[in-house]
Amino acid sequence: MARKKNSHIPEPSVRRLPLYVPLLRDELAKGRERISCSTIATQYGFDPTQVRKDLAATGAVGTARVGFKIDELLHAIEDLLGWRRLKNAVLIGVGNLGHALLNYKAFKHYGISIVAAIDSSEEKIGWEIEEARIYRLEDLVTIVKEKNIEIGIITVPAPAAQEVADYLCEAGIKGIWNFAPVVLQKPDTVFIENVQLSTSLAVLTNHLEHQNT
Amino acid sequence: MARKKNSHIPEPSVRRLPLYVPLLRDELAKGRERISCSTIATQYGFDPTQVRKDLAATGAVGTARVGFKIDELLHAIEDLLGWRRLKNAVLIGVGNLGHALLNYKAFKHYGISIVAAIDSSEEKIGWEIEEARIYRLEDLVTIVKEKNIEIGIITVPAPAAQEVADYLCEAGIKGIWNFAPVVLQKPDTVFIENVQLSTSLAVLTNHLEHQNT
Repeated sequence: MARKKNSHIPEPSVRRLPLYVPLLRDELAKGRERISCSTIATQYGFDPTQVRKDLAATGAVGTARVGFKIDELLHAIEDLLGWRRLKNAVLIGVGNLGHALLNYKAFKHYGISIVAAIDSSEEKIGWEIEEARIYRLEDLVTIVKEKNIEIGIITVPAPAAQEVADYLCEAGIKGIWNFAPVVLQKPDTVFIENVQLSTSLAVLTNHLEHQNT
Repeated sequence: MARKKNSHIPEPSVRRLPLYVPLLRDELAKGRERISCSTIATQYGFDPTQVRKDLAATGAVGTARVGFKIDELLHAIEDLLGWRRLKNAVLIGVGNLGHALLNYKAFKHYGISIVAAIDSSEEKIGWEIEEARIYRLEDLVTIVKEKNIEIGIITVPAPAAQEVADYLCEAGIKGIWNFAPVVLQKPDTVFIENVQLSTSLAVLTNHLEHQNT
């Protein structure tokens, strides 16, 4: 299969590609071998041209009228998204959300492995949740080095988030997945992706509150 | 305070406004009375003109050189986002993530109250997590009516999500907060907001994978 390396893919495509993965895995499990853009587009209610562009960005090459070989397409998407090489992560803040993320076994299908956690409550130090042991914040630099950690996941309350981000950046982390409802300041060398639940909820509650006014 | 009802606010403003709330609450707690757009902009590294537009959209009126009264501004933002009237919600799928969301007490500050949950495992039926009791899926219609529920939160695995969404729509829900990595089909009368963790993670892992290539 032809496959060209292309790191500059439009972010909307990067955001849509993961959505195709469950369908492709499902089709493979059913023993299907090929799938067309229009089949995928129909499943998701997307425009076929958009799907075609998303798939072209992966470098996978389809055949006219026959479509893509599903295993090759899946491989190309996972490769592009960086899901075929496990990156180690440390999670900071083992509250409700942190705990849930530590327990989520499927992250390995999405390219990350949470190998350590940090918490400020003394009684949690030394606990193990799945593969992650809980350490103190002052151990962060050592752990990041020893365990070759690239990603920091921030699940602390908002007022503590910037301090935690500073520690992560100093420890040499490359990317941060931030769940705290704050805009973090960081050096240019660190990439931040935010999951802001309050912001997402606001879009929903704003709509419900004002749709009839 | 002048306050005009305005339901057609640009979504980017709706997504930024929740970010200002922690700062405003914090300033109020410190006994401050007024805040300016430029102070807020500096705190977040945003453009002051953008902050001014966001705040203008709430209908709150500031005074030149003195800024906004913090309590009035907070009130206006919360009002706009629909956070001053609690909306009842039912959560479907009490796995790790569902459990974490049920335990999250701060949702009431964001305008929702999870008053019931649904799960498919028989042994969980009747459990109570915070204020939510767990019911069977076949009880959904009755519960939505009895408890005056407007929002459905979907935390089931991807293959079950569309069926659950169909049940919610039939039960008369107005909005869905969807955590499953699927694009849901729904009637025009129902509003869906997605939190797709795999998609968010993909943006991060794609960047880390290809930034050096």
